[in-house]
Amino acid sequence: MLAAIEAGGTKFVCAVGDETGRIVDRIKIPTTIPEETMTEVIKFFKKYTVKSIGIGSFGPIDINEDSPAYGHITSTPKLAWKDYPIVETMKKAFGVPVGFNTDVNAAALGEATFGAAKGLDSCLYITVGTGIGAGAIVQGQLLQGLSHPEMGHILVRRHPNDSYEGNCPYHGDCLEGMAAGPAIENRWGLKGAELSEREEVWDLEGYYLAQAIMQYSLILSPKKIILGGGVSNQKQVFEAIHKYLPEFIQNYISLPELSSYIVKPGLGDDSGISGALMLASRALENN
Amino acid sequence: MLAAIEAGGTKFVCAVGDETGRIVDRIKIPTTIPEETMTEVIKFFKKYTVKSIGIGSFGPIDINEDSPAYGHITSTPKLAWKDYPIVETMKKAFGVPVGFNTDVNAAALGEATFGAAKGLDSCLYITVGTGIGAGAIVQGQLLQGLSHPEMGHILVRRHPNDSYEGNCPYHGDCLEGMAAGPAIENRWGLKGAELSEREEVWDLEGYYLAQAIMQYSLILSPKKIILGGGVSNQKQVFEAIHKYLPEFIQNYISLPELSSYIVKPGLGDDSGISGALMLASRALENN
Ligand SMILES: Nc1ncnc2c1ncn2[C@@H]1O[C@H](COP(=O)(O)OP(=O)(O)O)[C@@H](O)[C@H]1O
Ligand SMILES: Nc1ncnc2c1ncn2[C@@H]1O[C@H](COP(=O)(O)OP(=O)(O)O)[C@@H](O)[C@H]1O
Ligand SMILES: [Zn+2]
Ligand SMILES: [Zn+2]
Repeated sequence: MLAAIEAGGTKFVCAVGDETGRIVDRIKIPTTIPEETMTEVIKFFKKYTVKSIGIGSFGPIDINEDSPAYGHITSTPKLAWKDYPIVETMKKAFGVPVGFNTDVNAAALGEATFGAAKGLDSCLYITVGTGIGAGAIVQGQLLQGLSHPEMGHILVRRHPNDSYEGNCPYHGDCLEGMAAGPAIENRWGLKGAELSEREEVWDLEGYYLAQAIMQYSLILSPKKIILGGGVSNQKQVFEAIHKYLPEFIQNYISLPELSSYIVKPGLGDDSGISGALMLASRALENN
Repeated sequence: MLAAIEAGGTKFVCAVGDETGRIVDRIKIPTTIPEETMTEVIKFFKKYTVKSIGIGSFGPIDINEDSPAYGHITSTPKLAWKDYPIVETMKKAFGVPVGFNTDVNAAALGEATFGAAKGLDSCLYITVGTGIGAGAIVQGQLLQGLSHPEMGHILVRRHPNDSYEGNCPYHGDCLEGMAAGPAIENRWGLKGAELSEREEVWDLEGYYLAQAIMQYSLILSPKKIILGGGVSNQKQVFEAIHKYLPEFIQNYISLPELSSYIVKPGLGDDSGISGALMLASRALENN
């Protein structure tokens, strides 16, 4: 069996399955403190003969194999998890290869293997939820370098009629500060799900996400863009992106027809956990 | 011998050498019309026994091997070269494998193999000259997907005291429209080289380039950033980038010490031609 963990800030999803993406058992465990959460995680996997483990994790994390902090969750605001060596914990418990990457890189890998970008060697997975993050597959490999990408905090141009100051603790009005779920709630005074009928909300959201997609496309040139996360449940967001993206790009690059280029996750909520399964599979191969 | 071509808008640099980066002969040929320029190019290489050819080209170009227009220079404003099948021309003349990529991807490959990023599997090469472009190596591979990156045209935030409208024919005030050599000349009324003493010129230039580097770093996380092109001859530009980049990033990601992270090309003017030699070498290996 391959073991997969989607380690999130509110819950851990654990699954066992195989390299075809088939999941045979899964469990959700609340994210409390490592001692509690990881004990439950290990207990779940101990029911199986685990050949390798893949972890897609919330971050920031250290994915540089030459670093002494490799396999750690690093400077997270969730203090109980700061500097937590999640890879080491799993290696000690199971003695098998462990693949480790960000939740969004894992989701991109899941979508590129089994989902909306199946068969493509390149895609971008963006989540717009409590925060904004993105992962990517480039020439079949997970996008990483000095560290993993932090695409949610890119600069955007403020809409001339938008006076919301932004709520990113670092940058104020970066993309995440202007367009993640909490920014929507702060700006309009209601949760995103309660604003479905308010056209101007999703038009503005599309204005910022279209800018982000322009930057991502010019810099990475992905073959497919997958937009997930709570906010992507508002289908008007896709319409607004389709409206604004051509206004920003001005035909400078030619993109495929937008409704098939920027799409929902093909795997629904399973992009991340399926990608983690693939991280396990790759860890086994590389061993 | 490996053959290398750095195909530029004003001149073609052609060289023969080997996979260690050694160049044994080279020539510069003016870029006029394909019939003239390519005749000279072929004549030069015919003096040698060419095993494979690498081309780093001005663009836009088609580098998608599955595309019918693969190997063409596509929608360039240099009309004589529009849709010109440069790869096919060289294949017909020499019957050897041809590697083909953008000038800036080639330069990134050259720097990652022999230059300032030697030994790294990741780097970003930015040129700020007549235009702005960038190429990258990601996990040892050339960055490409749907097409090649077009990083010069990302959106930047206008400096509050800058009233220059920008000169990009597509976007007006995108990065290239605000910060390439011609934008500097337009805004200040003198050529860049004549503005060395004007501190405010290079401060503003650094303001825009720091924004670009922030976006590139958040999205690609390169291990080293190499800044070339005519404008990078002003060393004050590096100082201004060092000043503004931390103001934009706000410690959200940690970067290496900036003076060793953002550097001049290790190969001087030879990044591109050396990278083209590596494209030739890779084309031979992949054959
Ligand atoms: N249907 C919806 N429409 C708009 N916003 C939503 C919707 N569902 C959730 N959200 C917003 O998305 C955020 C939660 O994102 P989600 O992707 O579900 O979780 P997380 O990012 O924490 O993993 C919240 O800010 C919430 O208000
Ligand atoms: N020393 C310099 N200082 C500032 N700008 C320069 C300098 N040298 C060249 N430039 C500017 O760079 C541009 C030419 O860029 P360059 O990289 O030399 O060529 P190209 O981009 O055409 O290959 C021109 O706009 C020129 O004014
Ligand atoms: Zn931010
Ligand atoms: Zn532009």
